[in-house]
Amino acid sequence: MMQTATDGLSGLRLGIAGGGQLGRMLLAPCQAWGLYTRVLDPDDDAPARNQCTEFVQGDFRQADTLTQFAQGCDVLTVEIEQVSAEGLERAEAAGVAVHPSAAVLRLFQDKGLQKQFYFDNDIPTAPFVLTDGLAGARAHAGRFPAVVKLRTLGYDGKGVAVVDTPAQLPPHFDAPLVIEDKVDIAHEIAIIVARSTSGEVRAFPPVGMTFDPQANLVDTLYAPVSLPAALLHRADDLALRAAERAGVVGLLAVEFFLTHDNQVLVNEAAPRPHNSGHHTIEACHTSQYMQHLRAITGQPLGDPSLKAAAVMVNILGAPQGAGPARLVVDEPAASMTGLFVHWYGKTHTRPKRKMGHFTVTAPTLAEARAKAEVARQCIRVEVVD
Amino acid sequence: MMQTATDGLSGLRLGIAGGGQLGRMLLAPCQAWGLYTRVLDPDDDAPARNQCTEFVQGDFRQADTLTQFAQGCDVLTVEIEQVSAEGLERAEAAGVAVHPSAAVLRLFQDKGLQKQFYFDNDIPTAPFVLTDGLAGARAHAGRFPAVVKLRTLGYDGKGVAVVDTPAQLPPHFDAPLVIEDKVDIAHEIAIIVARSTSGEVRAFPPVGMTFDPQANLVDTLYAPVSLPAALLHRADDLALRAAERAGVVGLLAVEFFLTHDNQVLVNEAAPRPHNSGHHTIEACHTSQYMQHLRAITGQPLGDPSLKAAAVMVNILGAPQGAGPARLVVDEPAASMTGLFVHWYGKTHTRPKRKMGHFTVTAPTLAEARAKAEVARQCIRVEVVD
Repeated sequence: MMQTATDGLSGLRLGIAGGGQLGRMLLAPCQAWGLYTRVLDPDDDAPARNQCTEFVQGDFRQADTLTQFAQGCDVLTVEIEQVSAEGLERAEAAGVAVHPSAAVLRLFQDKGLQKQFYFDNDIPTAPFVLTDGLAGARAHAGRFPAVVKLRTLGYDGKGVAVVDTPAQLPPHFDAPLVIEDKVDIAHEIAIIVARSTSGEVRAFPPVGMTFDPQANLVDTLYAPVSLPAALLHRADDLALRAAERAGVVGLLAVEFFLTHDNQVLVNEAAPRPHNSGHHTIEACHTSQYMQHLRAITGQPLGDPSLKAAAVMVNILGAPQGAGPARLVVDEPAASMTGLFVHWYGKTHTRPKRKMGHFTVTAPTLAEARAKAEVARQCIRVEVVD
Repeated sequence: MMQTATDGLSGLRLGIAGGGQLGRMLLAPCQAWGLYTRVLDPDDDAPARNQCTEFVQGDFRQADTLTQFAQGCDVLTVEIEQVSAEGLERAEAAGVAVHPSAAVLRLFQDKGLQKQFYFDNDIPTAPFVLTDGLAGARAHAGRFPAVVKLRTLGYDGKGVAVVDTPAQLPPHFDAPLVIEDKVDIAHEIAIIVARSTSGEVRAFPPVGMTFDPQANLVDTLYAPVSLPAALLHRADDLALRAAERAGVVGLLAVEFFLTHDNQVLVNEAAPRPHNSGHHTIEACHTSQYMQHLRAITGQPLGDPSLKAAAVMVNILGAPQGAGPARLVVDEPAASMTGLFVHWYGKTHTRPKRKMGHFTVTAPTLAEARAKAEVARQCIRVEVVD
């Protein structure tokens, strides 16, 4: 009988760069397994603050801060891409097991390098050009209308502009850019794959995404996805190829565009737990958070298959109002079977801020959708007077 | 549409007396709902320490300590019976919502009062007599062989002796005692019921229990239970009656003896989350911890029904050896679908100490049992050299 690395796992010291909701939810399986957890975040009111063994207030984008934070950790991981890759490199040099690695982070935190990586590895993606600043965009005026993305530091849609001409770009786009062709999107799906320290890989079932066009944020996510198996298998293969070619250890969440002419194009990917996997907590045999933990600690990967159909809805700050926040859940949602509310513990709301999410599970997707629509009317964020 | 008390729940301050594994697991739904949590425990290495917003090191059996701890809490609850009832009374007087109440705690922390309560409320229980000390036991020598229980401070079987004569009682039984007839036990089951601040009640499905005779601890628990529906309904009715007559708010975990002649006898009960409900985390639509939280915060109760068959096994410290502990999980358990390991984060093991548990879920109980037997061979506690 194989003795696995769980031997001693209960004493393992795990560092997590970033203390947002993804870090908070990653701490749940760490608690179940009894790990020692240390979280780094600049916000002393970070959602993960009170779920970890040790909280360190500091900026994970600063190499020195991250290097110091990593001291004494056996394993270091991230819940956000925007961490100092130099800090991760120094942690690697000091003997900490860093998953994903500094090299993987460097790749995925730059959407230009990411696009080039897809191109170099025969992973279909929307046609693109890399350029620099507003002048660079004007030099490619012939590619417009286009989707323009900041190569770095874009997050939750804030670094993406869909414009008809370069002149419509906002001033903060005077920076390194990816200019992408607008593609004819029929469906958007996401697939989260896990790859462990031993090279084992497993893919979660695809999820369908619908976006809030105003906030440019994922609004609703659902599983299973009813699309031709050939298309889904193709996406699966591409997600696994991306993880293997990039050498990801941990999760890689890959978003796809499926076009009306049946192309499967990678949109973008992130080497960490992802909003598109929240439903896995209740709907899959293994959650994305547990799977990430298994992958980075050298455990065998868990079964990612669905136990039930699921719909996940982000709970966003109301369009009007910012200030101290509270969650309101009216009936019939308050007593609804199969409804799971996750509130991230952010004390302050602002318009469209991700304050929480809810997942509805049911035997069929139609049932889950119907219940989610009812729940959506009952769950909201209010500003405390 | 009814506006429920979830309004403002995300800002609610919940105090929990006791920071053991039950407190630790109770904190998971508190995190999901974003509550402010404060935990009191004498052990500065308590399992719940790092999952709460604020940890207070102190003895919940001291009235002053508990009174001070409760200041500023909106709701106070317990994860252990052995808390100062006087402290709870003072918290009630100060306007804190204490669930379960001081009166309920006083009742259930004394097995003599408990037995009398069952007798007074037509709740069948094994014939008994209350007496005091070894001399008292000798005065009832005619009732032996008997089950003798310390009226107070017994826990995890340490306050129960099954003896043939009073002379066999250990010295620490020179205290207030319950002397019970040994009954002809065919099955042991437990039913956890929830009763909310509004009086709503719901019962979890019965679970079957098998005991480790050496440790006198629940060893394996399983659901569903295949016994005649009439017997199970009777137990259900008795559990609900006990909760209502006692005025419990929160959970009441009721253990039953089912005799060969089809009597349904209450053994004992605890007004808190219970070892016999661990499996509800993965196997029921609502966990016992979420149900307790709903009950004490005035939320509608959730659906307690089973989603799958389940077997729960306590992970105990090995019979030999005490010291710094680690968990070992060998294959095939490490990658088993439907196996959920919970390690409580206790840094030190000792023989038979509850260090964690695992739950196996499966479509059928036979399948869950088979997997649990495999898992049992693969999961163990070791002393770190």
